[in-house]
Amino acid sequence: MYEGVVQDLIDELGRLPGVGPKSAQRIAFHILQSDPVDVRRLAHALNEVKEKVRFCVVCGNVSESERCRVCLDPRRDPAVICVVEEPKDVVAVERTREFRGRYHVLGGAISPIEGVGPDDLRIRELMTRLADGVVTELILATDPNLEGEATATYLARLLKPMGLRVTRLASGLPVGGDLEYADEVTLGRAFEGRRLLDV
Amino acid sequence: MYEGVVQDLIDELGRLPGVGPKSAQRIAFHILQSDPVDVRRLAHALNEVKEKVRFCVVCGNVSESERCRVCLDPRRDPAVICVVEEPKDVVAVERTREFRGRYHVLGGAISPIEGVGPDDLRIRELMTRLADGVVTELILATDPNLEGEATATYLARLLKPMGLRVTRLASGLPVGGDLEYADEVTLGRAFEGRRLLDV
Repeated sequence: MYEGVVQDLIDELGRLPGVGPKSAQRIAFHILQSDPVDVRRLAHALNEVKEKVRFCVVCGNVSESERCRVCLDPRRDPAVICVVEEPKDVVAVERTREFRGRYHVLGGAISPIEGVGPDDLRIRELMTRLADGVVTELILATDPNLEGEATATYLARLLKPMGLRVTRLASGLPVGGDLEYADEVTLGRAFEGRRLLDV
Repeated sequence: MYEGVVQDLIDELGRLPGVGPKSAQRIAFHILQSDPVDVRRLAHALNEVKEKVRFCVVCGNVSESERCRVCLDPRRDPAVICVVEEPKDVVAVERTREFRGRYHVLGGAISPIEGVGPDDLRIRELMTRLADGVVTELILATDPNLEGEATATYLARLLKPMGLRVTRLASGLPVGGDLEYADEVTLGRAFEGRRLLDV
């Protein structure tokens, strides 16, 4: 409906996740009215990401160098690995400031529906990292959904013969949440995982 | 939280309208996993829009040349002008295929709250277009909200001495809508504007 390059931009924006035709149009008109310097900076950021970002050869997290910042940091405990599905999960865990070990990014979760099997994940790379015996604990921090649980169970079974401490993040009520609004599975897990109050 | 260029991209995306921090992160990771050719095409589309698109000197619509396609099209009736707020309204009217005249884009609507007065809109340019007496009808197609109505009223008063036919788009129930869910103002307008059924 628009002339040449405006329609091209709307089409390209519409291919982004979560951007429908209306949002694409809105963003395109915003761009039309923006300072050219700002737009050039966005275009530059897009190109830079594709040119500079790769994946850490050790843990699979996003990185601008061969190894990521966490893998290069000598203060991070090499004996504990937190296994997550995606690079954004690394950021979520880092934000808690609770974890001082290293990571392993699987690149997804086992999902027969989406045709993702164990061979499609970075599981072989994880096994290689465990070979030298430095790692003593693996925290399975895959998502608390069907695919994440299946992946955690698969890994736990695979790792069992290696005599490692394999843990899973606790499930329960979200802090600040409302018991009344918790779904029954979450509430059930909260009961299962109840702790003795030391007062 | 992310390394250099990934965070830069998230920041730039987060400045776009309707893109919150979570969406910006989601889009950035989508970009990371996309084909570099697709990303370069998006970056190129952004730059192209800023380089090539300007506004039609006659009607104010977006255009890649001095005059837009509608203003250049000899089959479009020069005697009727449809006055709209924004270029996207031109696209909305074009989509109906009901209108064969030309457009005038005001670049907004009168809004004392946002500090937009008549002098901030392309009203002088509209008056210039009317000087040669070719135009016989003006259809005021500003939005059916407070600002749009105020702008239409302002223009109608301004144009009255010129002896033109000045019309406003009909207000009423949306086609395919539900009478029950119509707000009282819309339903009131639908009563006011009721038509005799010729059966």
